[in-house]
Amino acid sequence: MSDAAINWFKTDLRSHQFTLYEHFKVHELFDAETYGDYFAHLSREDCDAVLEQCYRFCNEVTGPLNGVADRRGCKLEDGQVTTPDGYKDAWDQLYAIGLPNFQIGLEAGGFQGPTSVGVVLGEMQGGANVAFTMYPGLTHGSMELIEHFGLEKDKKLFVEPMINGRFAGTMCLSEPQAGSDVGALTTKAVKIDGNKYKISGTKCWISGGDQDMSENIIHLVLARVEGAPEGTKGISLFIVPKYRVNDDGSVGDSNDVITASIEHKLGINSSTTAVLSFGENDGCEGFLVGDTENVGMKQMFHMMNGARIAVGVQGLAVAATAYQNALAYARDRKQGSSVKAFKDPNAKRVSIIEHSDVRRMLMEMKSKVDGMRALCTYLSVHQDKATALDAKGDHDSAVYHRGQVDLLTPIVKAYCSDQGFRVCETAIQVYGGAGFVQDNPVEQYLRDAKIFSIYEGTNHIQALDLVVRKLRHRDGKDLNDFVEGLTEFVAKYSNDPACGEEIKLLAEAGREIQEAGTTIIQYMMTGKLDQLTLCASPFLEAMSHVTVAYLLLDAAMVAEAARTQDDDQSQEEFDFYAGKVMAAKFYVNFILPQAFAASKAIKSGDRSALDVPDAGFSSAW
Amino acid sequence: MSDAAINWFKTDLRSHQFTLYEHFKVHELFDAETYGDYFAHLSREDCDAVLEQCYRFCNEVTGPLNGVADRRGCKLEDGQVTTPDGYKDAWDQLYAIGLPNFQIGLEAGGFQGPTSVGVVLGEMQGGANVAFTMYPGLTHGSMELIEHFGLEKDKKLFVEPMINGRFAGTMCLSEPQAGSDVGALTTKAVKIDGNKYKISGTKCWISGGDQDMSENIIHLVLARVEGAPEGTKGISLFIVPKYRVNDDGSVGDSNDVITASIEHKLGINSSTTAVLSFGENDGCEGFLVGDTENVGMKQMFHMMNGARIAVGVQGLAVAATAYQNALAYARDRKQGSSVKAFKDPNAKRVSIIEHSDVRRMLMEMKSKVDGMRALCTYLSVHQDKATALDAKGDHDSAVYHRGQVDLLTPIVKAYCSDQGFRVCETAIQVYGGAGFVQDNPVEQYLRDAKIFSIYEGTNHIQALDLVVRKLRHRDGKDLNDFVEGLTEFVAKYSNDPACGEEIKLLAEAGREIQEAGTTIIQYMMTGKLDQLTLCASPFLEAMSHVTVAYLLLDAAMVAEAARTQDDDQSQEEFDFYAGKVMAAKFYVNFILPQAFAASKAIKSGDRSALDVPDAGFSSAW
Repeated sequence: MSDAAINWFKTDLRSHQFTLYEHFKVHELFDAETYGDYFAHLSREDCDAVLEQCYRFCNEVTGPLNGVADRRGCKLEDGQVTTPDGYKDAWDQLYAIGLPNFQIGLEAGGFQGPTSVGVVLGEMQGGANVAFTMYPGLTHGSMELIEHFGLEKDKKLFVEPMINGRFAGTMCLSEPQAGSDVGALTTKAVKIDGNKYKISGTKCWISGGDQDMSENIIHLVLARVEGAPEGTKGISLFIVPKYRVNDDGSVGDSNDVITASIEHKLGINSSTTAVLSFGENDGCEGFLVGDTENVGMKQMFHMMNGARIAVGVQGLAVAATAYQNALAYARDRKQGSSVKAFKDPNAKRVSIIEHSDVRRMLMEMKSKVDGMRALCTYLSVHQDKATALDAKGDHDSAVYHRGQVDLLTPIVKAYCSDQGFRVCETAIQVYGGAGFVQDNPVEQYLRDAKIFSIYEGTNHIQALDLVVRKLRHRDGKDLNDFVEGLTEFVAKYSNDPACGEEIKLLAEAGREIQEAGTTIIQYMMTGKLDQLTLCASPFLEAMSHVTVAYLLLDAAMVAEAARTQDDDQSQEEFDFYAGKVMAAKFYVNFILPQAFAASKAIKSGDRSALDVPDAGFSSAW
Repeated sequence: MSDAAINWFKTDLRSHQFTLYEHFKVHELFDAETYGDYFAHLSREDCDAVLEQCYRFCNEVTGPLNGVADRRGCKLEDGQVTTPDGYKDAWDQLYAIGLPNFQIGLEAGGFQGPTSVGVVLGEMQGGANVAFTMYPGLTHGSMELIEHFGLEKDKKLFVEPMINGRFAGTMCLSEPQAGSDVGALTTKAVKIDGNKYKISGTKCWISGGDQDMSENIIHLVLARVEGAPEGTKGISLFIVPKYRVNDDGSVGDSNDVITASIEHKLGINSSTTAVLSFGENDGCEGFLVGDTENVGMKQMFHMMNGARIAVGVQGLAVAATAYQNALAYARDRKQGSSVKAFKDPNAKRVSIIEHSDVRRMLMEMKSKVDGMRALCTYLSVHQDKATALDAKGDHDSAVYHRGQVDLLTPIVKAYCSDQGFRVCETAIQVYGGAGFVQDNPVEQYLRDAKIFSIYEGTNHIQALDLVVRKLRHRDGKDLNDFVEGLTEFVAKYSNDPACGEEIKLLAEAGREIQEAGTTIIQYMMTGKLDQLTLCASPFLEAMSHVTVAYLLLDAAMVAEAARTQDDDQSQEEFDFYAGKVMAAKFYVNFILPQAFAASKAIKSGDRSALDVPDAGFSSAW
């Protein structure tokens, strides 16, 4: 077992440039005439400088810690969690550089950068060490929430130290009997005075629930005020620091928050997952977020949407470095001779990248990774445009973009987490036996990636969000807007010499999922809710494949134009663009047929999973 | 982290009875008139008694060791590997009961039982502790090989102690530069006298390469005799004991076999995976298997076919217990209210088995597990019939059955390993966060299951075996026999009231893969070997889904007849049979469409993965 600090992180910088500036033209956001002032202080060079800084940080700081930190994990001793060697230093460096503040507003001391560029920052940091990113990620999310909904006095106390890394943050939703069913929670809040309450209860699955990197930890805790209604309607959100914070901002005594235990997990081992006990000694104070009780769920969802997109980016991140590592191995590893020389026992050994099946696996990984990146960036560009247009006062245009963000959020979260795991699995297969051992990074990537389909709302919760809420949102307007974009694209390019056939297949798949969608809406209209929920996950899968195929083909059209227009192109550039075109064609021919398969299942109307008697699942108990 | 010895092993005994006696009518093998004497000494009661004994052994001995042994793993200290506490005792108990000898011939002191019943023994042992089964599994395989090909003097020395557990066995194929490409190996053999050779070289990935449970370890080592041809044609097989064995059978001095290192792996941690160094001090003696050099590959393949089937059974085994655990959790865990009561915030919490998506996941797991079990048993029954008919002298009938074994072996290995892993992944999803932690067994199942798609020939090697060799074997006769069976089934049942629609879809899928097969054969005939190999894995996938759908529907017809014929049936029995019918319907409607998707990819003729320039995969190096 290699315990040396090896940096396995790999990323394709050229591909980031393509996605940001050639495909999605993110630099147009900086144009004040179109998008107003919000991003006008920025240039492409500014953003690239941050990307460069982030790349260095990943390679030099968190990347080399990834493997050793995984083996060591977090430890709970005498009520205090310790993180692996180097984590405290990495935390300090991260906040010294200010990477977590890339999207934070200028007034608050941030960079006010686009979330689309933030996707690349997230991909790099997650690729280098996804477990480590949990700490600043949750800190950022909870800080934003306080900034957005908190009372002025609380903002003053908590926001700045959460921006500069003195304090960290967490979100505390789950309880032993209330996971996906948040409304069942029992943590109690009793009013003391003002927005101060006494908190008591137990929370579990708390990422970053304790650590030894920051001076304090600010927990955002969902709890029920005495006498509040049952279910999600009676939930309020509280700021509960680990240590009390004095009025001058200094850290005071313990606030009766106890780390009861930490989990021993399959992956993300250097990210604490804690069970926290609040108010066991009757001494835990919390501060209501804002001045209104019972709106905690709404407030938490403000953070949740961002968190779900961030999980999608985590899936992309781990998949991308897994792909790059498998590719590097395939280029290096010699095994067997070319199939073209199968009659010659003395044929020379070749790199395994020359074998068709290895190419198939690499292409599957590449097309999914490129697809995830395009998907996350596409959503984020909509978000950036919505932000900029809102700031500019053009709310009507902003609504369109915000609608696309809403529609695509469950797809980003579920697709990138499911396929991110699948890419890691394929990476192991490319390595063969060498992928199963700790000498190579891919077995860790697989373990780390498994949680993404579970946390921040399981992928079925995402599917329900899609079919129950998002498809019907604004009377189906968001969905129509999306379909219109796809239809225009098909009309424009369906006779393209490079990808015309594939674009026709995309159009067919688009019609197929519309039929599947109609079936699902009929289930809803006729009250067949059990069949609706049965088909939600397959529908999300089908729609994801269509969306990703669309974005890959869209990228291919950009690449095709670039490689055929410029006669002075280097071979390297020509090959790069060829890779984009081939990835799109491969995805459509080899992966997109799964959208038809999922749609076929939906349209079959099969009820066997619903009608089977419970005892029919198995006679064993 | 729970380090207590918990037995998580779960199996559905009723389902085993159904598969063996109701679906495949294994007891007919005991009928001397039809199948001769080979199995005539047995009765169903005899076999059931062994199953019962095995079940007890799994629950009481190896099952409780599975988790703790995983955490502890194997350790190499002072050149000797130690296995976890309890393993030596489990080994002794296993051989005291005689379970590994179930299929060994009567003359050699075995039970001479059918391999089809052996599948259940394998499923139970693998479900209880798959890492432990590696040791007796490889011992059995290498013993059989010596028994079949060895010189009398070597059989006398090695076979009996390998049957009674005094000695263990391994197979040593891979070398650092020769994995899938066995022909590239460089381990050397220099003749001393008789069949005694001096052996030198390094072997890696040796399962059971060292341990502290048996008195001696008999390595079967592939090596090249000085002056032998290059490639696979110049490979010979040698018996290389860890300790020399004296003529009286007692164990003597070290034979210069050194455990250079052991791997630290993703899973099967309590199974040693060693790098072995042979003859580092010029003192390693090996004995040629038989009296002919350069036939080592053929000899090894004799063992390999059995080993590949055994890996398929491992996939089934881990998937089956993962499914049963997820099912038990879903029956127990309360979360959320029924979708039917979605308007009532006070609706009672229900077990998650009541949620549609959980039922979908459980049904997917059940249908795959039932399908794998049917597939493994179907192949094994053919093997048993071939064995019995050969022994009876009816070689013509035996040829048919042997052909089906050959055809289905790569499907059993690849399908059960790929889908076994997938079932474990789904099991984690059913648990949610609880599946990601070591308090529950499913995260270990996932880790253990990953190796199955890699060892004993990667799944792509299986796909090549299928499309390059097996489809054309005996001029396509084996394939035709298989298709005929399927066609007869469709003709007989396509108007069945319970499953007629599904059987029609099966017929359609059968035609679809025939078209895909034709495309593949055209690639072969026109020398497009890169496209042939590109499509091999998708073809294996498609053919596997069709085969499994066929066997599940066949089982459903048996179940449907049983549940409608018997008026006095208990509710329990009725529900059990309903489960079989529903599993088939679900598989056809929700999973079988993937066969169409794979076929569509093959028929597209897309060459993007082949034509993409190597540099187009990524600009990062």
